[in-house]
Amino acid sequence: MFRNFKTVPYVIFGRGCFNQLDNIVDERRKNPGSFIVFLVDDVFSNNSFRDRIPVKSQDLQLWVDVEEEPTTEYVDRLTELVKDFSDRLPTGVIGIGGGSTMDLAKAVSLMLTNPGSSVDYQGWDLIGNPAVYHVGIPTLSGTGAEVSRTTVLCGPEKKLGINSDYTVFDQIVLDPELIAGAPADQRFYTGMDCYIHCVESLTGSYLNPFSKSYGEKAISLCREVFLDPGPESDDNLMMASYLGGMSIACSQVGVCHALSYGLSFVLGVHHGIGNCLVFDQLEEYYPEGVEEFRRMMDKNGIKLPRHSLPAVEEHEIEKMVDVASILDPLWENALGPDWKEIMPRQKIRDLYLRLLK
Amino acid sequence: MFRNFKTVPYVIFGRGCFNQLDNIVDERRKNPGSFIVFLVDDVFSNNSFRDRIPVKSQDLQLWVDVEEEPTTEYVDRLTELVKDFSDRLPTGVIGIGGGSTMDLAKAVSLMLTNPGSSVDYQGWDLIGNPAVYHVGIPTLSGTGAEVSRTTVLCGPEKKLGINSDYTVFDQIVLDPELIAGAPADQRFYTGMDCYIHCVESLTGSYLNPFSKSYGEKAISLCREVFLDPGPESDDNLMMASYLGGMSIACSQVGVCHALSYGLSFVLGVHHGIGNCLVFDQLEEYYPEGVEEFRRMMDKNGIKLPRHSLPAVEEHEIEKMVDVASILDPLWENALGPDWKEIMPRQKIRDLYLRLLK
Repeated sequence: MFRNFKTVPYVIFGRGCFNQLDNIVDERRKNPGSFIVFLVDDVFSNNSFRDRIPVKSQDLQLWVDVEEEPTTEYVDRLTELVKDFSDRLPTGVIGIGGGSTMDLAKAVSLMLTNPGSSVDYQGWDLIGNPAVYHVGIPTLSGTGAEVSRTTVLCGPEKKLGINSDYTVFDQIVLDPELIAGAPADQRFYTGMDCYIHCVESLTGSYLNPFSKSYGEKAISLCREVFLDPGPESDDNLMMASYLGGMSIACSQVGVCHALSYGLSFVLGVHHGIGNCLVFDQLEEYYPEGVEEFRRMMDKNGIKLPRHSLPAVEEHEIEKMVDVASILDPLWENALGPDWKEIMPRQKIRDLYLRLLK
Repeated sequence: MFRNFKTVPYVIFGRGCFNQLDNIVDERRKNPGSFIVFLVDDVFSNNSFRDRIPVKSQDLQLWVDVEEEPTTEYVDRLTELVKDFSDRLPTGVIGIGGGSTMDLAKAVSLMLTNPGSSVDYQGWDLIGNPAVYHVGIPTLSGTGAEVSRTTVLCGPEKKLGINSDYTVFDQIVLDPELIAGAPADQRFYTGMDCYIHCVESLTGSYLNPFSKSYGEKAISLCREVFLDPGPESDDNLMMASYLGGMSIACSQVGVCHALSYGLSFVLGVHHGIGNCLVFDQLEEYYPEGVEEFRRMMDKNGIKLPRHSLPAVEEHEIEKMVDVASILDPLWENALGPDWKEIMPRQKIRDLYLRLLK
């Protein structure tokens, strides 16, 4: 069985295309009383970019705090805020920010039309109803959240996405000018999410010619951006993220993402940094990728903040192993159908211990 | 202004994925009395593949003749056949074949919901109503018809596409096994459509980083397929066609396609062969592309059927120039905003004369 892959049906790409958002959204504002929810990374609340967001008086603007990874609890709270704002459903939910903000926008658009808590939908294809029309506008590139069919959330028990065709954005606005202002280290860590996606996709057992061609193009763009940058680096990084997201959407990620999920869940480490910390330890599984990753770090003057990881207790390690080991598709992609023999619980534990020593 | 680009929202890719068509279509057969129209290249009418097409007793199967390029008259006739078959609209229109068959399926799905003749809609964004759900299943790769927002038709006055977001398929089924049986020369000419798309896109003034990354990957896959073929050639050619189609969808084609349209319109030359005949004469505009194209011909033992072009009369040349010269976006992409000075009518005429001498 091959996946019938849901793509983002409308894509606009180009420097300055954010200025067309107002027109794009206006087509939806047909009914009187309709309103749009803008979920925007609060880093822009004190920034001149704020004035460019086409919020109308009838709309709801919510500044979101993505200091921590998105949680199911936060999604439920944001959904309640929208429901309290109006008896109607919004005409659209627009997420403007990095991967966390986009995941929040996807999750809120789903939870407005599906009953209960977002916790109930962490998993694969548990969503029953289509989401509210939702638009993703990345201001950081690398996560692939703009094209993926998931919204990754930390719940009370696990870090796991709401994976569904309905999760996919209805529209994305890819304006390379929006990522120009990101701090260099954040840009690097987020960009490495894309690089690692490609390594995991291209070396995985789920690889197919569709994912391969997307992954190969995305990784070559990552190489340009992080080893041989030019004036089109922002454009190329944005395209790399999009194409890398397409690649994993039809294959899977692997060992790095599995371990990184456990790390984020227990220690709240941001996904991009978590990936980098883990990937740097995975020479055994991705020798060429890790070597190139280290060259990219050198070239970009990045030092991994390993010192920032706190001392962990025994039960925390156990919890990390719990979170990582339920991610069957990731392990199977990386290690094949016999992954449970190749990667028993003890070995996952050892990998965490090596990372946290 | 950037184009808000409409993509195919569902894509399934893989060897044997055609077997999932029945399931995909079944999800649409919810209402009693619903039926599906299968438009299938009549080359399969005497072929074992015919038995694999999931036609049910309530459906309408139409074998289509693509010996000649699709015409508006043929589209109108097929649309009438569907309307005569039932008072209802079909639940879906499924095209199985090469670029011509896919164009017919797109056009019929549009004409079932839009009044008048397909002639009325040749142009850009003249379609007012969404099409019937339509699915494209290529059995030849290269045209990019599976992803494009056009259906190219020969009308009484011109060869021009019905360009619209509604033209885009709702679903495509990309099964590399389906292109394995194509005759070598047909495979080559159709594949060169993709190669030429990429050359025209990558050297054009409309190029942008989105089209560039798609075009670069597509052209590198074409090189593998036609210069260094391996066991994944069918997969790679199918991906090249898809990615090349994405590239031109956000940029444009150029001189070769403009001239080829005129040639097809007047002489009925098939698009793939027409492109090759024209491209071989365009060293001045695409020097590297033409050189590589000739190497691809050599490697694949292809001899262009130049002898098959009939002697033409003066008024036929004039008509070719008429058809080619209205394609403003193609010329502007190739030659810039001053294309009318660079390429006056006389020069277009000279290019045709050189080709037809």
